[in-house]
This record gives sequence, structure tokens and C-alpha cells, in this order.
Amino acid sequence: MKPDSVQRYKIIVAYDGTGFHGWQKQTDRSGQTLRTVAGVVEQTLCQALQQPIVLVGASRTDAGVHALGQAAHFDAETPIPVERMGHAINSRLPADVQVMEAAIVGPDFHAIRDAAFKHYRYRIFCADRSPVHERHFAWHCWRSLDVERMADAAGRFVGTHDFAGFAAAGHGRRSTVRSILACRAERDGAGPLLNVIVEGDGFLYNMVRIMVGTLVEVGRGRYEPQVVEQVLASKNRREAGPTLPPQGLFLDWINYAGVDVPR
Amino acid sequence: MKPDSVQRYKIIVAYDGTGFHGWQKQTDRSGQTLRTVAGVVEQTLCQALQQPIVLVGASRTDAGVHALGQAAHFDAETPIPVERMGHAINSRLPADVQVMEAAIVGPDFHAIRDAAFKHYRYRIFCADRSPVHERHFAWHCWRSLDVERMADAAGRFVGTHDFAGFAAAGHGRRSTVRSILACRAERDGAGPLLNVIVEGDGFLYNMVRIMVGTLVEVGRGRYEPQVVEQVLASKNRREAGPTLPPQGLFLDWINYAGVDVPR
Repeated sequence: MKPDSVQRYKIIVAYDGTGFHGWQKQTDRSGQTLRTVAGVVEQTLCQALQQPIVLVGASRTDAGVHALGQAAHFDAETPIPVERMGHAINSRLPADVQVMEAAIVGPDFHAIRDAAFKHYRYRIFCADRSPVHERHFAWHCWRSLDVERMADAAGRFVGTHDFAGFAAAGHGRRSTVRSILACRAERDGAGPLLNVIVEGDGFLYNMVRIMVGTLVEVGRGRYEPQVVEQVLASKNRREAGPTLPPQGLFLDWINYAGVDVPR
Repeated sequence: MKPDSVQRYKIIVAYDGTGFHGWQKQTDRSGQTLRTVAGVVEQTLCQALQQPIVLVGASRTDAGVHALGQAAHFDAETPIPVERMGHAINSRLPADVQVMEAAIVGPDFHAIRDAAFKHYRYRIFCADRSPVHERHFAWHCWRSLDVERMADAAGRFVGTHDFAGFAAAGHGRRSTVRSILACRAERDGAGPLLNVIVEGDGFLYNMVRIMVGTLVEVGRGRYEPQVVEQVLASKNRREAGPTLPPQGLFLDWINYAGVDVPR
């Protein structure tokens, strides 16, 4: 049995994915520890709280993918008041990953199991020039895209479907059925930036990047919007568009229905 | 005499200063060419236009300083129509520097001499956490700042004054008198970002960064807003605030009165 003074904490983590090999702790083939978000945050928590910490993150974001609102939980026994926890961690963390919020949650809270849905955003900078100051935070598309066609196709993802055709090989999941709550393609103001918003209860490996890659092919005129239903039906990855690069993708927030309010 | 087909071009250049040793071409002590914005753009122009090019930039921004609207001119004889010039250059430039506009100007136009005033912006991210996704494009201030006090002090810079007290040693200019047309400190929306806007007819070495460093000391409560008049009168650099780091500084645009419309 845990002593009473051990508490479970939930943290919201923001990071620039550029300098990380993704969220999940890993070593390379030669056994070297790679720089990962979970690894850096876990190590910093151990130092700040002076105890062993096991960090459980909600989403295993890939190398280069960014987050504004990754969620994670851990157990710790510490005299640091929760309202000072963020500062205690942030002052020790490198500048490319920071804790946005820290809260005490019930001992049964689980960052993966209790996640109701996740909100991703893919940023496309669509212009005849590179996005000089945002090139690590958007994918640069030299061609012009028809946003109305993309929006038409995006709406066709909404619902519960078998997304096998939109998953990279080796996803290793028993079921490839997922529910998409929202999918929209829209301009971000008057500038050259487009956002594709995807909200769902779970995602297969590279699924958002393949979904958006397919929408881009629709926007370029190479596919019709109906390609979405066709690939959902065929479950054939080869009929979908390319996997877009990671730097356009942001994990904006994760909703914990019943545990948390939407952010 | 120049042949008639030689034209003078004005270009507007945007860059992420992070990976450059400033605008001005230079070599290090061992004679190695450093990566500079002017060097990279000039070399790319030579390749794109297949002729020797001499690029004259309006502002010698320091290492790490960014630009949205640096201006420069050069002479060239080329069959490339001016409306395709931007694309021809950008497709050859690295992603951290791009041409935003290219125009043919009269043979007497001069990027330095004709610059009427320059608009700089210094971005301060004022929060208990690092600006994860903007850390190369803002200075992080852990302390809270009183923006009203900073705005009060900022207004005191406006006018024609001797700015010797706000120049780094070794500025090498005969006159240290400059005119500030506008100086404002203001919040950027509801978030933790503050902008200091400085518009003037010319700037001494590190002048904007020292002006803003002085405003930050006012915002922290270490100096009174009257420090501005005191340092203008004393001309003593040691009475002003620190030189803030380069990554917060943006050259937004340069106005060419009578040649150009304000942007």
C-alpha cells in the first residue's frame, strides 16, 4: 500500500519537437540514450523532487512533432506545494520543453486510459517563399492549395471508421477502428498559413500526417474529395496521400472527459 | 557609362538571424568567411543572375537579430522579369533567409542614403516559463514587468537627442544625435508577450537593445521613468540599462519617404 502522502500529479507539457527524438524514451542501436521529451522531463522530475519518478505520457508523439498540451501523470511524495511545482520543474528544464500546468489528481487518474479525445493541428505554409521564422513549426508547400476542396474532403473523415488505409505499416494495433470528432481545413487569417484540425479518440501510427497528406493531394487537384471514403473502404495505404513531415504537427490539447474540463 | 539594360533593383529581405553572424559580410580572425545574410544573399544573386553582384543593405543588423523587412539594392542586367525575380532567388536561398519583394528602382536609389526611418520591434516574453516555441524570437524575462511604467519611460525617447549614453563603446560615428519618431511599450494581446516599438531616422551600435534594456529596468522598478532624460543628459552609458540579447530584436521595415510608401 502507498503511504497517504504519495500523490498523483497530472502535468501539461509544451515542447518544441525539433531537438527531440519524440516523446517516448528510447535508445539507439548502439545502446545510447536518445534525447526524448519523456526522458528529459522524467530526469528533471527526479532531480527536482529527489526521488525516482515514472512518467506516463498520454501521446507518443514522433520525432519533430510539437506539443502545446501533452498530458502526463506521475506519483510523488514532496513538500513542494502544487502551485509551485511548475516553477520548480521549469527552472530546471531546458528551454525547449516546459510544464504549462501541474495539478493533483485522484490516485486512479491515468493519462492514457482516461484520455477522451486529442486535438491535433497541422500547419501548412502555402507560399512562393519559405516560412523564414516558422520553418520548424509549419510544413512549406510551394504549390497553391484549394482550401474549399480540402475542407470538403476533411469533413468526410468525421465518424467512426476503420483507418487501416491511413496508418503507416507496423502500427501494431489490434483494432484500426477510430472515431474522428472533427476534421477541418481552414485559413489562418489572411496570410499564407492553413490549419488542418483533427480531433479524435485515438490515432494510429502517422495517421494525422497521412490524413493531411491526402487532403493536400485533394487541394492540389490530384485527388477528388471522395478519395477519403475510397481509402476508408479499401483500407489500402497506397491509395492515400504521402506522410507529411513532422514539423507541421502540433498536439494542442487532450481532453479528459469527466476528469477535466476541455481546454 | 552603364549600358541601358543594367537596372537597379531594390529587394526586401526577411531572415531568421539565429544562424547568421549578422548582416554585414565578414571574416573571422583566421580569415574564414563567416555565414552572414549579405554574404549568402549576394552569393545567391551571383548564381541566379550569373554575373558579379554588389549588394548594399540598409541596416547592419547584429548576429542573432532578425528581420522581416531589411532593404537592399544591387545593379544587374538580366532577362528575368522583375515579377519572377523573387521566386528565382528564393528557390536558391536557404530557408532561413528569403526575398519578400523585388522591384526595379531608379539608378539613383540608394538603400542606405534614401532610408528615411527604420522600424524596430523588441519582443519580451514575460513569464514564469520559457517561450518554448518562440525562444529564438523573443527575450525571456522571468520577472514581471510594469508595462505602464515602461510606456511612460518609452515616450521620453521621442524627439531629437544626443544618444551617446545609449550607444555601445566603439560605435565609430561622428555624430551621436538621432531622431526617435516613436517609442512605445505595449502588451501583445492577452498573453505574456510585450513589444517595444522603436522608430527612428538612424541608430547607433546596440542602441535599440540598450534603450529597451533601460525600459526593462524601469519595468522592474529599479529605475524611475526619468532615467531616460538623465542618461540623455549625462551621455554616460554606465547609467543606462543592460544591452539585451539579440534574439528579441526584429527589423520590421524601413521607410523610403518620397521613394516608397510606408509598409
